[in-house]
Amino acid sequence: MKTKSTGLRVRLPVFVFVTQVIIVALFASFVTYDEQTDARFQTNRTNPMDNALYRDYPVFTDIQVMIFLGFGCLLAFFRLYGFGGLVFNFLTATFAIQWAILVQGYFQFSHEGKIHLGVINLVNAEFACAVVLISFGAVLGRTSPLQLLVMALLEVPVFACTEWAVLKYLRINDAGGSILIHLFACYFGLGVSFVLYRPCLNEGHAKENTSYQSDILSVIGTLFLWVFWPSFNSALTLKGDDQHRAVIHTFLGLSASTLTAFALSTMLNKRGKITMADVQNVTLAGGVTVGATVDMMISPAAAYSLGIMGCTACMLGYKYLTPVLARHFRIQDQCGIHNLHGLTGLISCTAGICAILMANEETYGPSFYEIFSHRAPVEGDPKLQELQMLIPGLKPGLGRTAREQALYQVAAVFSTIGVSALGGVLTGFVLKMKCFAPPPDNFCFDDELFFEFPLDYDSPPELNNTTEDSAA
Amino acid sequence: MKTKSTGLRVRLPVFVFVTQVIIVALFASFVTYDEQTDARFQTNRTNPMDNALYRDYPVFTDIQVMIFLGFGCLLAFFRLYGFGGLVFNFLTATFAIQWAILVQGYFQFSHEGKIHLGVINLVNAEFACAVVLISFGAVLGRTSPLQLLVMALLEVPVFACTEWAVLKYLRINDAGGSILIHLFACYFGLGVSFVLYRPCLNEGHAKENTSYQSDILSVIGTLFLWVFWPSFNSALTLKGDDQHRAVIHTFLGLSASTLTAFALSTMLNKRGKITMADVQNVTLAGGVTVGATVDMMISPAAAYSLGIMGCTACMLGYKYLTPVLARHFRIQDQCGIHNLHGLTGLISCTAGICAILMANEETYGPSFYEIFSHRAPVEGDPKLQELQMLIPGLKPGLGRTAREQALYQVAAVFSTIGVSALGGVLTGFVLKMKCFAPPPDNFCFDDELFFEFPLDYDSPPELNNTTEDSAA
Amino acid sequence: MKTKSTGLRVRLPVFVFVTQVIIVALFASFVTYDEQTDARFQTNRTNPMDNALYRDYPVFTDIQVMIFLGFGCLLAFFRLYGFGGLVFNFLTATFAIQWAILVQGYFQFSHEGKIHLGVINLVNAEFACAVVLISFGAVLGRTSPLQLLVMALLEVPVFACTEWAVLKYLRINDAGGSILIHLFACYFGLGVSFVLYRPCLNEGHAKENTSYQSDILSVIGTLFLWVFWPSFNSALTLKGDDQHRAVIHTFLGLSASTLTAFALSTMLNKRGKITMADVQNVTLAGGVTVGATVDMMISPAAAYSLGIMGCTACMLGYKYLTPVLARHFRIQDQCGIHNLHGLTGLISCTAGICAILMANEETYGPSFYEIFSHRAPVEGDPKLQELQMLIPGLKPGLGRTAREQALYQVAAVFSTIGVSALGGVLTGFVLKMKCFAPPPDNFCFDDELFFEFPLDYDSPPELNNTTEDSAA
Repeated sequence: MKTKSTGLRVRLPVFVFVTQVIIVALFASFVTYDEQTDARFQTNRTNPMDNALYRDYPVFTDIQVMIFLGFGCLLAFFRLYGFGGLVFNFLTATFAIQWAILVQGYFQFSHEGKIHLGVINLVNAEFACAVVLISFGAVLGRTSPLQLLVMALLEVPVFACTEWAVLKYLRINDAGGSILIHLFACYFGLGVSFVLYRPCLNEGHAKENTSYQSDILSVIGTLFLWVFWPSFNSALTLKGDDQHRAVIHTFLGLSASTLTAFALSTMLNKRGKITMADVQNVTLAGGVTVGATVDMMISPAAAYSLGIMGCTACMLGYKYLTPVLARHFRIQDQCGIHNLHGLTGLISCTAGICAILMANEETYGPSFYEIFSHRAPVEGDPKLQELQMLIPGLKPGLGRTAREQALYQVAAVFSTIGVSALGGVLTGFVLKMKCFAPPPDNFCFDDELFFEFPLDYDSPPELNNTTEDSAA
Repeated sequence: MKTKSTGLRVRLPVFVFVTQVIIVALFASFVTYDEQTDARFQTNRTNPMDNALYRDYPVFTDIQVMIFLGFGCLLAFFRLYGFGGLVFNFLTATFAIQWAILVQGYFQFSHEGKIHLGVINLVNAEFACAVVLISFGAVLGRTSPLQLLVMALLEVPVFACTEWAVLKYLRINDAGGSILIHLFACYFGLGVSFVLYRPCLNEGHAKENTSYQSDILSVIGTLFLWVFWPSFNSALTLKGDDQHRAVIHTFLGLSASTLTAFALSTMLNKRGKITMADVQNVTLAGGVTVGATVDMMISPAAAYSLGIMGCTACMLGYKYLTPVLARHFRIQDQCGIHNLHGLTGLISCTAGICAILMANEETYGPSFYEIFSHRAPVEGDPKLQELQMLIPGLKPGLGRTAREQALYQVAAVFSTIGVSALGGVLTGFVLKMKCFAPPPDNFCFDDELFFEFPLDYDSPPELNNTTEDSAA
Repeated sequence: MKTKSTGLRVRLPVFVFVTQVIIVALFASFVTYDEQTDARFQTNRTNPMDNALYRDYPVFTDIQVMIFLGFGCLLAFFRLYGFGGLVFNFLTATFAIQWAILVQGYFQFSHEGKIHLGVINLVNAEFACAVVLISFGAVLGRTSPLQLLVMALLEVPVFACTEWAVLKYLRINDAGGSILIHLFACYFGLGVSFVLYRPCLNEGHAKENTSYQSDILSVIGTLFLWVFWPSFNSALTLKGDDQHRAVIHTFLGLSASTLTAFALSTMLNKRGKITMADVQNVTLAGGVTVGATVDMMISPAAAYSLGIMGCTACMLGYKYLTPVLARHFRIQDQCGIHNLHGLTGLISCTAGICAILMANEETYGPSFYEIFSHRAPVEGDPKLQELQMLIPGLKPGLGRTAREQALYQVAAVFSTIGVSALGGVLTGFVLKMKCFAPPPDNFCFDDELFFEFPLDYDSPPELNNTTEDSAA
């Protein structure tokens, strides 16, 4: 009976094998090597060490560690669902990346009817994967692995399409992905969560406790994310000084938010003690908050201040907003993604708009028109030719004013939130379809339901006392 | 009495100090810096940033993480032998690398009577070390640290000599090491295991259980290996597009095998649950399976398919072959290396042979003769001069046809398996010599035997109930 | 009452917010971008891929992992203070880096009244942070997080000032930081510890035990440090062959000390068992011991031998010196930093002096005057011009002889030890001031005191039996 409800015995394999056949067929039909990977494009003037691999691969491995070890350990904080967090993160991430290679490839990397594949596609696909994993945080412990795969199946195309439309038509500045990654992921996840609402969880659930070991593991996940976050935020900026600034700003933002998080955590606790959930989550707020301005000349002090602001908003969100959302708006948010990605994302977007309004050629020099590429003069404008003397290879822009660019940023924020929330709600309804074996409403997962436990398995501790309801 | 049987008090220190004295003597007599490390070779035209360090070091650190953290955590899956897995991996790896620097240095990096040392030697030595650690997987929990060191002492020279002979005389394509690393390590390990056969282990042993925490740790090891496997497979390819393809293929292969592993794990389980051992091992099968073709133009779809095939073979091996080998062929294989490295290695070699037979200049362009260097025309052939116009610096080859190359690959597979199995069996007999204090036959190690446990050590859980036999 | 004694509820937030306001003000007033980070400095001849980011960032991430994951896990070895080790390391490191950016910036990176910021400052700041964390090891479990922050607040300026004075006035060779990092950190920490002496701890304290899980975690921390130590030791050498040698020497030193550590650990144990504390600490001794000579042409054999010597000294220190220091000299040293950083640092300095005395142009070629830059001829010396033909860009030196340089090294050792010990003692007295809420003398911290434990928290095991004194 239990087995039936998880859908693992038959439905998961069927889903996987069907999608794998489709993926192989799509790869065989549409995916080929890009110029950097194809042996035929190498001539006697190619210097092997100029291959894009050496530029993209270090970033790729850093983000790999964040996705598989960082997110994985971070999500393993439930006492009875450590395997679930760590292992389903592994499963979902793997699937999301494969799928994103194809879907993003279609939108961004295809020409002449073929998707061209290099490590840069993998980096982009890992960003799409991060989106899915952030959304996963809202419904951790309430969605079976099959449901997670279906969620990834639906979220990746919605994300890739939004990303493509926003970058192509609205043309915004969002180097660290505050809008496209964090806001999208957050509101998609909350949309799903809204549909999968379970009243019983509001009272607190025995299975939602952590243990000493699971808290340690989760902090280690946080540290992996913390350490490599500068790579994440700077992965898709322009190379050179832009990327350098992105690293510095991210580090300062994270560093400020970590310190603030400790101070707020003890201050807001009745007995002056540190809450581990704050260490695991709120310390990271600065990384998101600097996102939209990460490559701009905002000054180190501003990056530091953004870290403090983001952290404060995030902490107050955990303390006061999350319970309200759960009780009065039917939006349960297991990992508090609305605090860590939503509120901070909104602050980041606001900061981005301010930075755009204040940016000028004096501060940036001629590379102003590279960072704010849409403000570059249009094709044919004599100013463009002047600038091209200073910056060889500068592409014509759209001749936008600062205010116009700011309006486009605002439009991107609202349309991203709208599309993602709607997409999330619709995805939630799909996840409740009978064929995906949704668990009953008064139900909270534990590892024993999904994983083969040996007879004398010693752990997780006190498992026996709290499993009555899983048998229900 | 216990102490005596482990050989740690006297024999391990004696072994270590004797080998260290020998190693220092050999270093002092024969090891010097290579051109990239020696200050004297730097002239006023040397650009420091062109030093090979910047090409080799990133790969080196990735493989360091795999060896010490990846293998270490992965091997720590036994409930009562977590220290053993993690710590003896550390010990054995350290010794194997030192020893391999000297032995491989003799075969590959010596001229004018000196071994020339740079980071590239360390990378090669870590591959030799990986061979030892894979073999270690077959006899985990049955070999004392002293025996492991002796095994490394013997396996490294056999490996280095085989590697040298195969690369020098058979001249094969094996960028990812499917033949030389995975098949060698697997059959060497099984050879040792055959000699160290313990009937009592076939019935399952209380000490061979895992615990919740040890399973988590082991998955983390898997994730370290998974994340950095593209570095491992691409470390020794040609630079440029070849290495780029190696990264892509490895990622796709691993990714496909991970998804397949989850589907098969639930499908083959009676109650539709996921087995943690599958998550820990079978997910990695794709990395091995793409090994022999990793730098070839096999197409992304083929890499993906190889991942699925390798994973399926590996999973069926765990389920059906391992018990048969243990019961009827006296070959016990604690970590199932025959599934993860043997079966997948054989598939990989087969795929490599197919890829060699199908490769042509049309697909590869002129760099065809770089990847398949032995098919390049011989010295003096006019075709060679033509090609050297297209690819400056192309070295003369052996003028082999595709079929000839394929035959050499087959020869390499069989000779590697033969040599390694024989070497393993002989090593096994050495390990049973009295002077290395082999444990009694009905014996399975636990941490308490090797590590100083404080009086009130709280863990591993339920230790007291299951230690009777270790006192026997 | 408990709460009051930890100072977390009010004093920690006050301290953090006050310092954050000051830091923001200092950043806003004095910190700007450096040439590699400022958009205005990029011209049409700037190649983005030549940005210093690509040279410094890989080293930076490696050291990030060492600081946050390596030190963090290593310090988490107490059974009841795992959160404390891991989390307070996170807090202290974050604060120390921010503070070091400003203080070191003032001494080393300021011109025209501004501190110029790039990733290289972060790398330097992480070294200052490592100093604080090493000192932290001496007083682990005896200092509250507020005290740790105050310690960082005071130690960073003393360190930055010493570093600046030694490098500017004594001009020594110390690429791996044996003097400036390890000796400084060690004697500062012992100075603090001397003042915070607690007689009760000498008898061994129930809370100072480890657990199976905490020992595993700590070994993982060791492995992170081990794996990336070559990056640490080579981060601040000259680029090219110097850095290459630093990597090789560090690896060989660590490798030798690891093997020796296992041998000595079993040999010195009555029952021939391995002590986990040795695996966690003594294995790393070689990394420190090669520090002062890490970029010199000392030969691989010498690096290996230094590893053995350092490890032996470190092991004997743990076994015989630490108890004597604690009982008779009032110097308690929880993590044994005097063995791992002090004794090994002294050996390293001695080796450095020998290497300086033996160095000559024959061994090093003309780059001799780059590595030993103070031995280069003074401005105006005709020899300088000759050399500048061989090494373009060679800067005039001080024309020191080998013996002079050696004397300056000795002076640096003694002055560093003197300044750091004095600084540590004074810092200790500050930490005992009432306003920083020092804990009572017969007191040893546990996690429950600082962290919010849920009601049915299952762990750390046997917590209830041993918490009586924390209620006292």
